[in-house]
Amino acid sequence: MLSTSRSRAVFAIGTLLCLGATALWAQTSGGGGEAAAGGHSDPVTPILFDLIALLLAAKLGGAIFLRLGQPSVLGELVAGVVLGNLLLFPGSQPGLEAFVARVLEHGGPIDILARLGVIILLFMVGLESNLRSMMRVGLPSLFVAVIGVVVPFLLGWGVSAWLLPGEGHDPLVFVFIGATLCATSVGITARVLKELNQLHRDESRIVLGAAVIDDVLGLIILAVVSAMIGAKASGTAVGLGSVATLVVVAVGFLVASVVGGIWLAPRVFRLASRLRGEGLLLITALLICFGLAALAGLVGLAPIVGAFAAGLLLDEVHYRSLTDVGETHALEHRIQPLADVMVPIFFVQMGMTVKLSAFAEPGVLGFATLLTLAAIIGKQACGLVVDKRLDRTSIGIAMIPRGEVGLIFAAIGHSMVLNGERVISDLTNAAVVIMVIVTTMITPPALAWSLRHGERKLAAAGHPVRPPYDPSHELDADD
Amino acid sequence: MLSTSRSRAVFAIGTLLCLGATALWAQTSGGGGEAAAGGHSDPVTPILFDLIALLLAAKLGGAIFLRLGQPSVLGELVAGVVLGNLLLFPGSQPGLEAFVARVLEHGGPIDILARLGVIILLFMVGLESNLRSMMRVGLPSLFVAVIGVVVPFLLGWGVSAWLLPGEGHDPLVFVFIGATLCATSVGITARVLKELNQLHRDESRIVLGAAVIDDVLGLIILAVVSAMIGAKASGTAVGLGSVATLVVVAVGFLVASVVGGIWLAPRVFRLASRLRGEGLLLITALLICFGLAALAGLVGLAPIVGAFAAGLLLDEVHYRSLTDVGETHALEHRIQPLADVMVPIFFVQMGMTVKLSAFAEPGVLGFATLLTLAAIIGKQACGLVVDKRLDRTSIGIAMIPRGEVGLIFAAIGHSMVLNGERVISDLTNAAVVIMVIVTTMITPPALAWSLRHGERKLAAAGHPVRPPYDPSHELDADD
Repeated sequence: MLSTSRSRAVFAIGTLLCLGATALWAQTSGGGGEAAAGGHSDPVTPILFDLIALLLAAKLGGAIFLRLGQPSVLGELVAGVVLGNLLLFPGSQPGLEAFVARVLEHGGPIDILARLGVIILLFMVGLESNLRSMMRVGLPSLFVAVIGVVVPFLLGWGVSAWLLPGEGHDPLVFVFIGATLCATSVGITARVLKELNQLHRDESRIVLGAAVIDDVLGLIILAVVSAMIGAKASGTAVGLGSVATLVVVAVGFLVASVVGGIWLAPRVFRLASRLRGEGLLLITALLICFGLAALAGLVGLAPIVGAFAAGLLLDEVHYRSLTDVGETHALEHRIQPLADVMVPIFFVQMGMTVKLSAFAEPGVLGFATLLTLAAIIGKQACGLVVDKRLDRTSIGIAMIPRGEVGLIFAAIGHSMVLNGERVISDLTNAAVVIMVIVTTMITPPALAWSLRHGERKLAAAGHPVRPPYDPSHELDADD
Repeated sequence: MLSTSRSRAVFAIGTLLCLGATALWAQTSGGGGEAAAGGHSDPVTPILFDLIALLLAAKLGGAIFLRLGQPSVLGELVAGVVLGNLLLFPGSQPGLEAFVARVLEHGGPIDILARLGVIILLFMVGLESNLRSMMRVGLPSLFVAVIGVVVPFLLGWGVSAWLLPGEGHDPLVFVFIGATLCATSVGITARVLKELNQLHRDESRIVLGAAVIDDVLGLIILAVVSAMIGAKASGTAVGLGSVATLVVVAVGFLVASVVGGIWLAPRVFRLASRLRGEGLLLITALLICFGLAALAGLVGLAPIVGAFAAGLLLDEVHYRSLTDVGETHALEHRIQPLADVMVPIFFVQMGMTVKLSAFAEPGVLGFATLLTLAAIIGKQACGLVVDKRLDRTSIGIAMIPRGEVGLIFAAIGHSMVLNGERVISDLTNAAVVIMVIVTTMITPPALAWSLRHGERKLAAAGHPVRPPYDPSHELDADD
């Protein structure tokens, strides 16, 4: 029975791969759109092929890794790495190159779908979190965030001052490299915690809260370091006023949006429920989510921070205002299909940004290894500042991933010049990319292992036990 | 009670408008992203503001028109016309211009979301339709399609030969103008039929089938006329071979995809149900939908034709293969949220393409009026070829809308030159735009009226009565 089901799964994968290959072939074998002379060539056609390839890769990768007992997000990342590096093979089609370029186009349609996906993911994580219990762990969150920013920052600074290849670097270069190690990219962690059904643990709340504070702290450090470099390059004093403004705006945004949102959201929902039309509950919730995400983006924070805040405050209010029309669990249920389609796009795309060729650059690997170690060890310090009864290892691991925030910092440094040298050189940039790749890829399996292991340990110490992770609870569960 | 609820609705609209205004202000008051120096400026931020504006406009417009007893799609179109023409007012912000440009950017992120929206809409319409009952009305569908292509084509040809301003036009110019009137744009009609719960009527099946055939016929006419113009311009003979190839490919695609799909789809579903992971039912269905839509696009047909075919064949198969895992009505239910978010984007965007200034061009209005009349009257002939017991008026009205297919034909003609004259001149192009606007805007209210009226008439003649349309069945119905 099992072997039948397994052989069928293999056959399924084969069939789907054939379909995917057909799609890619059709797309790459040279402009069918133009071949059909005079037909209406719709710009959505190539995007449809891209979406088919991305979703197929995501689902196959996810299914394979679930079968191996790993979180499906790791499978999506690996599938992305495979798709993104097919070009390394000789004889790859030009259509494949166009496919990779379309998926990775900054601000292009696929990129926007991916970004909307991660916004919706963090919104859902916010909905599953509870503001009051987050506040209860506010102090540990703050500690974890501060330690998790300061220690990697200092370690990165030290490692680069000690070992950055080349000579005569400006000291601020080392400071800037340290800054690229600060901000946790919470998307991966949130997805793993959600997938493993662990969002309701104190550890998860601490990590999520810390990631939000983290983003603000990272922004402050980047602003201060950039201002110092700008001042040094132009020979003027540091504009502390503009840095202070930035900090006040960013912190003020978070407080104001949550406080204002808690006041406004139930009113908006109550009023929206008087309107007629389809999907009003979903649309109203998404408008609030998109609104806070956009405002976060405007003040220079990551939009996902705003989306998470929106989820947090809606969790508080939407039950109260909507229970009378029987909408209690409806919201999560309605958002799920959007997440099913868009979230995997984000993670496959993230895998596709991994250029395996980066590992081959001479001189990069040694520096990258040390930078990565600094990034990982630095975040392990986070675990030490929380209560001993908590799963400290998991907290440290959960804070490891550095995603696009690190890459964006590196890109900003790459565009700055100090004493005729790029603040982030090509070599440093490759090392940062490797650091992001490694921290992103090791987190899902490490966190899954650590959560299972930690529970066993806590149980042995007489603390309450939660059911161990069993991936089979997701089996065929489309709901 | 009613007045309280109404005043609350008004207050709701006010609140939402304020929120929208704030969002637009925040967006337009000059680059908050850049203002936050050094912050991560995410390309999704402006898109989030765009989506907020589009969804707010759609839901408010829809709610207002539902209250007026009109289909909400008309409200979305009108809201789009308002948004798209705010620029006509003096003192409009530069940010507004950027917003309009982003939404209308051909192949941009919002445009792709809108196109995915209409693909999902036609997929859902296909799911609600039934292939066997569509086949049962295959012959009337074919008649309706042929008449609905030939009569407007001849009328458009005649009107332009008779009245096109200017002299010395090549006869092929008139033929080409006739061709722009051929293809029905089934998106609007499908949405109205769905919204009014009329998809299960024979009239609806005939119209939907005719629209598919229509698209193929329109493609053939465009290909033949383009080939003739190309041959005349270059002084060679018409390449009938390539035209024949095109026709064979297009017709072959439709037949092969439906036949092949009916064989393949249940197997894919059965196999996908053995895989693990989230949202597999939804993703599998969407992969089939995107696949056929993309193939349709490749052979030069509108992708929505492929999406409709995918819905048709899945309706046949997914019940059989999935009932054993209790998924019977699950698919429509899962797709609905995607449609709730993406479909309104399409219709608001369609409204925004309406440039009211087109009506002001001198000389255009007279020719446009006649062209529009030719377009409308030509499709009324469709009703005459079906059984007298059917609602002939509704069939004629349902075939009226010419959407982007007409515009694409015009754009192709605009790019062709014959005897030193553009085949579609600026004046003709403006007239085609007006024809598209008018046929799009009159269809929802006319079809809603006609369906209600037709039912009363049929009831009086002793034919079976269906419950008259009552928009209140949608009241607060989020489900």
